[in-house]
Amino acid sequence: MAKKVRNAISPTREENYPIWYQQVIKAADMAENSEVRGCMVIKPWGYTIWENIQKNLDSMFKETGHVNAYFPIFIPKSFFEKEAEHVEGFAKECAVVTHSRLENDGKGGLKPAGELTEELIVRPTSETIIGSSFSKWVNSYRDLPLLINQWANVVRWEMRTRIFLRTTEFLWQEGHTVHATRQEAEDETDLILNLYAEFAEKYMALPVYKGEKTEAERFPGAVKTYCIEAMMQDRKALQAGTSHFLGTNFAKASNIKFQNKAGLEEFAWTTSWGVSTRLIGALIMAHSDDDGLILPPRLTPSHIAIIPIYRNEEEQQQVMEFIHQFQEKIRKIRYHEQKLVVEIDDRELRGGEKVWYWIKKGVPVRLEIGPRDIENNSVFMGRRDFAVKDKFSIDADEFISEVTNILDEIQDNIYNRALKNLHDHTRKIDEQEEFYNYFTPLNKENPEIHGGFALSHWCGSGACEEKIKNDLKVTIRCIPNDAESESGNCICCGKESNSRVVFAKSY
Amino acid sequence: MAKKVRNAISPTREENYPIWYQQVIKAADMAENSEVRGCMVIKPWGYTIWENIQKNLDSMFKETGHVNAYFPIFIPKSFFEKEAEHVEGFAKECAVVTHSRLENDGKGGLKPAGELTEELIVRPTSETIIGSSFSKWVNSYRDLPLLINQWANVVRWEMRTRIFLRTTEFLWQEGHTVHATRQEAEDETDLILNLYAEFAEKYMALPVYKGEKTEAERFPGAVKTYCIEAMMQDRKALQAGTSHFLGTNFAKASNIKFQNKAGLEEFAWTTSWGVSTRLIGALIMAHSDDDGLILPPRLTPSHIAIIPIYRNEEEQQQVMEFIHQFQEKIRKIRYHEQKLVVEIDDRELRGGEKVWYWIKKGVPVRLEIGPRDIENNSVFMGRRDFAVKDKFSIDADEFISEVTNILDEIQDNIYNRALKNLHDHTRKIDEQEEFYNYFTPLNKENPEIHGGFALSHWCGSGACEEKIKNDLKVTIRCIPNDAESESGNCICCGKESNSRVVFAKSY
Repeated sequence: MAKKVRNAISPTREENYPIWYQQVIKAADMAENSEVRGCMVIKPWGYTIWENIQKNLDSMFKETGHVNAYFPIFIPKSFFEKEAEHVEGFAKECAVVTHSRLENDGKGGLKPAGELTEELIVRPTSETIIGSSFSKWVNSYRDLPLLINQWANVVRWEMRTRIFLRTTEFLWQEGHTVHATRQEAEDETDLILNLYAEFAEKYMALPVYKGEKTEAERFPGAVKTYCIEAMMQDRKALQAGTSHFLGTNFAKASNIKFQNKAGLEEFAWTTSWGVSTRLIGALIMAHSDDDGLILPPRLTPSHIAIIPIYRNEEEQQQVMEFIHQFQEKIRKIRYHEQKLVVEIDDRELRGGEKVWYWIKKGVPVRLEIGPRDIENNSVFMGRRDFAVKDKFSIDADEFISEVTNILDEIQDNIYNRALKNLHDHTRKIDEQEEFYNYFTPLNKENPEIHGGFALSHWCGSGACEEKIKNDLKVTIRCIPNDAESESGNCICCGKESNSRVVFAKSY
Repeated sequence: MAKKVRNAISPTREENYPIWYQQVIKAADMAENSEVRGCMVIKPWGYTIWENIQKNLDSMFKETGHVNAYFPIFIPKSFFEKEAEHVEGFAKECAVVTHSRLENDGKGGLKPAGELTEELIVRPTSETIIGSSFSKWVNSYRDLPLLINQWANVVRWEMRTRIFLRTTEFLWQEGHTVHATRQEAEDETDLILNLYAEFAEKYMALPVYKGEKTEAERFPGAVKTYCIEAMMQDRKALQAGTSHFLGTNFAKASNIKFQNKAGLEEFAWTTSWGVSTRLIGALIMAHSDDDGLILPPRLTPSHIAIIPIYRNEEEQQQVMEFIHQFQEKIRKIRYHEQKLVVEIDDRELRGGEKVWYWIKKGVPVRLEIGPRDIENNSVFMGRRDFAVKDKFSIDADEFISEVTNILDEIQDNIYNRALKNLHDHTRKIDEQEEFYNYFTPLNKENPEIHGGFALSHWCGSGACEEKIKNDLKVTIRCIPNDAESESGNCICCGKESNSRVVFAKSY
């Protein structure tokens, strides 16, 4: 008789995907909601993932000629008002600083005092404040291109928040570049889009669609917005990075001008681009299972957890000695230009509890090592890409020589799993009825489950886009960069179209 | 006839130290004031120094068992009010968020809207908001010690600001730890003080006094505050890092309790500690000269700048080929666990202009390489710790094999220079008249120049401390940790004292 498998996370993905997501975060001890509305606390396990994302992305930025700088967190209201679409897009969700101190309110408490002559906005994004610096830095074509990145916190007063995915404060990087020609700025936008896609695929093990946003989904003030879109396990799309071609809109708003080679003054062309702590949410939702977090080896805080197994003090001493030596050997191994991180879990807990602890934290490789393993010079290995019970002995020296291959294999396996999810739940749809059925939840108990991504024709009209959004909560995620030219009919109005776009529900 | 030496920075240190400081920053293109009151823009050259500070300090924190996390930027006013001395210390200088959006004001502009039910303070320091998390994280002695660090921006609405040294917004790290016993918390405070001193000496090439602050100079809410104090070239002190033993004050304010081994509930013991972008100001003021910035090799963004010398295209090709190969060789060399950074300056400028450019930026080693050098397989080296004209040829292969030693020698030289400055301008003073003379500027044209640090006896009374502060603008920088017990008389009131303290003017 088949025993019902018990899982570490309840509810399962099937049972309730949104709550499963929260439970995975809790079980892995990654982050929690704070007592400040919509702001999260990123706990060490979650923050180390962010540090690894930063480290790797930062090298990619630097290799492509970008340098980091830091600009003020506050934006004077008047700067913010300079770009009309921009302010329209962000005015409804910004934290406003109006006072510079607190004083006694005469009732034992404190009240704001020192009213500012001009209100300051806590940056929701920095185009306008950085533009103000750039207008001083850029004078001649010799000053261009200017390729700057900033790692910072930003604040957007969102109505509904969800940990990592949409929080009032979040951490991100924002690139801001200035170019002498339209072409160079468009090339930069493209370079970064490809860089983001490469990062998602190589490091996050996350296949993505690259493409352009429709006008309705564009960044406020941009001429074109490009994005990468990934599929989560509930088949919803998650925008994982955006790269904006800003034309001369922000250059005009901030007065970024330069003298060209002919000695004439021109407005410069700018871009901006960013990814945020939302990527951690993407990682969780793309890879984890009903036993908790699954982390790609290239971004995990720890690669290997070692769990000592012993019954008495004598065994403990023998086991710990072996393990410490083994840990030292592993620590010397380089894995993609970093050193392997190995944790020894010597807490006073039962072995089984420790095994589940590391499963829930998503560590790629677990090693249980006891006296019998040591006798055979072997280690008992569990892999997070395999089933929990699917563990096996491996010669200790072989493990040392194979560990980087094993980690690469895990990285590939979880990538391929995510790729399969994307392929299995992406469908070319040409009939409106099929399209509507595809996006209609299968049953009421599980309103989240639906078809997935639809590749369908779209005539280019905002009205059709909006009708679909209103009917189904489905949006155009992007117009794929590599879409083949193919004639067809708009899935909404039936008018002619010459390429398909990606429709999906999204985070 | 001796020619008057012209310097790259005007005024010189002698002529006007505060303006010299600003000019060094400008000439090295490190940072600038922004249009937001008191906030600076940290430009790439300055920011990379901060990145190097972060990278090295962060490893030191991690090696001593600390992990990073991230907490909200906003602190609800009610949290802030929980610790009486703390709020007293910061209420006068905090940015207050009162609204969550902007709406049309009917006059073509925007006004704050969405008034918050509780004001939020932009963190000036995070004891209270982090304490709120810690109170949930800490339940049992098994959860302790809790050793957390955060890299973040903070805001203090300072009246007078000075770039890097005192700005409305600055970047820092703030460590926050929780311990089961008073002793463990005191040990942590001490561990970090020593770590900061080691960092200052090894990386920043900055000798420091380690010691305890007097009650008047303590962090608001702390039981004890320890600090490292360095001497700048104008003989003023700069507090370069603080480590606070908070007792149970903040544990009580935030309700951080744990069950001890005996099963009884106790308040925990906490510490906090931080260094900030102010360290960059310290670097500048401690080492730079009248030709601009001087950077310690262990924190410089670039170790070596190569300046190609040629008269025509043929020479250019030959020189550039040699230089690129040379650069590749240097890049493979490891210098204290990082790779050497070498820049080739191939801008269309005269060689002399480029040489001065890199002098002003403080790069430790400059290499001028032309056809004749290549013929001899040599490079023409200038070192930032030597006089500008003091350049010499060195065999190219010898340079490769010696470069890390050369850099270590430069690091040592600037450390020893700073140490000499400290020794030359520190004096044991036992007579009140001498003390008053020591701190009286030598002449009116140069009001900044005075004696330096005085090691004098102090009776321990706040009244004496205050009188000296009022009379001379001199404060007790610290009661040195390693002060020998020695009987004497208070420099102010003449009462008995058993050890000397460090008196100085300060930033």
